[in-house]
Amino acid sequence: MNATAAIGVTGLGVMGRNLARNLARNGYTVAVHNRTAGRTRALMEVYGDEGTFVPAETPEDFVAALERPRRLMIMVQTGEVTDAVIGQFAPLLEPGDMIIDGGGAHFADTRRREAALRARGIHFVGAGVSGGEEGALEGPSIMVGGSSEAYDSLGPMFEAISAKVDGEPCAAHIGSDGAGHFVKMVHNGIEYADMQLIAEAYDLLRQVAGYTPAEIADVFRRWNEGRLGSYLIEITAEVLAHTDPVTGAPFIDVVADAAGQKGTGRWTVQTALDLGSPVTAIAQATFARAASGRRELRAAYSGLPGGTRPPLSRTEAERFTSQVEHALYASKVIAYDQGRQVIQDAAAEYGWKIDLGTVARIWRGGCIIRAAFLDRIRAAYAFDRDLVSLLGEMEFAMEITDAQVPWREIIASAARRGIPVPAFSAALAHYDTLRADRLPAALLQGQRDYFGAHTYRRTDCPGTFHTHWTAPVRSETTA
Amino acid sequence: MNATAAIGVTGLGVMGRNLARNLARNGYTVAVHNRTAGRTRALMEVYGDEGTFVPAETPEDFVAALERPRRLMIMVQTGEVTDAVIGQFAPLLEPGDMIIDGGGAHFADTRRREAALRARGIHFVGAGVSGGEEGALEGPSIMVGGSSEAYDSLGPMFEAISAKVDGEPCAAHIGSDGAGHFVKMVHNGIEYADMQLIAEAYDLLRQVAGYTPAEIADVFRRWNEGRLGSYLIEITAEVLAHTDPVTGAPFIDVVADAAGQKGTGRWTVQTALDLGSPVTAIAQATFARAASGRRELRAAYSGLPGGTRPPLSRTEAERFTSQVEHALYASKVIAYDQGRQVIQDAAAEYGWKIDLGTVARIWRGGCIIRAAFLDRIRAAYAFDRDLVSLLGEMEFAMEITDAQVPWREIIASAARRGIPVPAFSAALAHYDTLRADRLPAALLQGQRDYFGAHTYRRTDCPGTFHTHWTAPVRSETTA
Repeated sequence: MNATAAIGVTGLGVMGRNLARNLARNGYTVAVHNRTAGRTRALMEVYGDEGTFVPAETPEDFVAALERPRRLMIMVQTGEVTDAVIGQFAPLLEPGDMIIDGGGAHFADTRRREAALRARGIHFVGAGVSGGEEGALEGPSIMVGGSSEAYDSLGPMFEAISAKVDGEPCAAHIGSDGAGHFVKMVHNGIEYADMQLIAEAYDLLRQVAGYTPAEIADVFRRWNEGRLGSYLIEITAEVLAHTDPVTGAPFIDVVADAAGQKGTGRWTVQTALDLGSPVTAIAQATFARAASGRRELRAAYSGLPGGTRPPLSRTEAERFTSQVEHALYASKVIAYDQGRQVIQDAAAEYGWKIDLGTVARIWRGGCIIRAAFLDRIRAAYAFDRDLVSLLGEMEFAMEITDAQVPWREIIASAARRGIPVPAFSAALAHYDTLRADRLPAALLQGQRDYFGAHTYRRTDCPGTFHTHWTAPVRSETTA
Repeated sequence: MNATAAIGVTGLGVMGRNLARNLARNGYTVAVHNRTAGRTRALMEVYGDEGTFVPAETPEDFVAALERPRRLMIMVQTGEVTDAVIGQFAPLLEPGDMIIDGGGAHFADTRRREAALRARGIHFVGAGVSGGEEGALEGPSIMVGGSSEAYDSLGPMFEAISAKVDGEPCAAHIGSDGAGHFVKMVHNGIEYADMQLIAEAYDLLRQVAGYTPAEIADVFRRWNEGRLGSYLIEITAEVLAHTDPVTGAPFIDVVADAAGQKGTGRWTVQTALDLGSPVTAIAQATFARAASGRRELRAAYSGLPGGTRPPLSRTEAERFTSQVEHALYASKVIAYDQGRQVIQDAAAEYGWKIDLGTVARIWRGGCIIRAAFLDRIRAAYAFDRDLVSLLGEMEFAMEITDAQVPWREIIASAARRGIPVPAFSAALAHYDTLRADRLPAALLQGQRDYFGAHTYRRTDCPGTFHTHWTAPVRSETTA
């Protein structure tokens, strides 16, 4: 077999197949392989004329089909299957060859695999691919980890097949080893928060403003034209406007209200806890999904009393809707700033040199959280690479300032009326916590010193202190 | 050396030393050992006359001093040191002997160690000891894992040295392998939530009601006489009443407002995420500590605008204080119910038969979260072992009903005034989420089906469905 393929893809599920087709459509010769040959043959039969594919039935034929240095992309199930496939192919490769994991691996696994393969001279590249099936085919957002050397070789292909915004590709080298999969994980964490915030906005418009799903779809369509403009807002309008063909009821009313989760939101929160990054909106979004699925617990709480819900007049409802837009936008800025924080914390922890402007740039297209808004984040970082917070950018700060009254009114209103707004509330509490001159954390330090002699610091001099709380005469000592 | 010791303690740091003294004071002969002999000698010198100690300088002498089956308690640093000490002593033991880990191990490590030692016929007992240094000496709360057989042998000793409430010991067998350390971890998670809720209440009384720390100390003293009566409320009053001897200022005002955390709160949240247990108040408490310590981030948010804070009249402040009591109490019930949930979820996951009434009973004394309130939880479970939620108990349900207006008003007020109440808000959102007839999670399911073909369930018939969102004519299929 001649080594003619620029890249090979093994694992031809829908994501692998679509990435292979995308590569072939962009003029690359693509070797294709699957554990069972049926999928390889099916791909050739249905899509074989979309470009130049080299089907391979055995791992050896597959590797033999690749130009050197070899670029071998694995698109298989995350976890042990990934390790098994790496174990199968690595012995067939040579120093300088590249294995790309385009699946949804945990960044810690990617770090482990990269280190193990680096010791054998093989580049292991964890690439986070966002955009689902359609994105894989038409242009995803690709967050690439691994070595710069590997990116020099792979970058042009990734950039060619990625989504484009203003002529710029939505693919970039994020940082070494697991940085790509880390940023993909945080993308998904932000996606959880974004979706939950939208869901809370919908709930408020439905239950407080009293709008129908079709009316709310119109609100979201209008919002999609403004600063909230994004894929998620756009499809929310589509989902809300949809009528169930079976019952004729609004689609949203026939869907079970128990949300699933695939684990990346959970990983983000767990990792943020280790890093000490307060990602409270993402955490609340993740827990809100978990809570929605707890049937027995919901049954136990069902029927307990809530707030009062006086109906709004048409004019009040319109004003309320505008307040919800402010609250949604402000909360979204906070959620993204929490995502930014955990990326920066991880970069410091793992020695990744991550350019947050680049991250924002490649999230503008292809991925689920693509949004007009991200172009402003990109621009903010182009202006100041060391921005500590999104609110350090003037325009965001002004928008947050404008949102003060409506944001707070919406949360007050939801609390009084008994509408759950866990993510809105978490975003506001995050904002009020970080801007506080003094936090009651001082009390926690006093309590901890009292019951556990954990010591405390003072505001007026350096050092660590302990108070002898239970001594007959209380006294302070330097600890 | 004669085998005369009922139990041995190795690791004579302050916790190990105090437990050894507690055992000796209760009439047990206690072998004592430390890696470096200095601590053993110091213990003998200072406390040797408190009971019968058998000092041992070598591991062999230490083991030889123990009656059979041997009971060997290790009180060393959590982590690798624990494994090293187990590795040192296990070869000197025989089938039927017991190793007790009284340190703060992660329950997953305890499960691993228990399984490894069980294979060698040795009982490994993870015992969560709460109460700090003073508790270890005067009577802690002890949450015991491991086998029933081991508890039959160890239980009388644990119960003898534990705190007593109404004549009942605050020590019990919780469940097999890691169950004791798991429940201790959740105890600490609840402690995080409890402390944060108290801190938020303090912050509101200070910043909204305008009270001085001394006045707030009086409020907490009064609350301590009622249903909030607990160790944490009691010491909060002490901390707030304390004047800094250096400056003459209220102590609370000279303490740095950056809280530390030891990791058990974090573990609770991370584990709850894996189990799908919504522990949002505990999560917010953990993140609030992390946020308080983020100097650079706080500086970046500093100066951003907040709510308005009109001063309250004396009468309004009194009414506000009573509302805060309701909010604090209701939020505390929710936080404990979140802790209950994660314990029940873990019991189902790991096959532990945990009696939640017993857990509440042994938390009534010795430990940091000891509270009058826990006796009611104990009683509720004595009445109905299968209670799904604390709010399933009539009195709690009535109190939550009474709290509706004040709880909601406090959160509305905090939002408007710009006081961060992350844990109060999370508790209310949890309550409103679980009692909701319909959650906007239905929208999430629609979005996920739209962008990722994740499918959804319907409310009106079983099965899994997918909508062809982008087809020219939208259609539904059974997935």
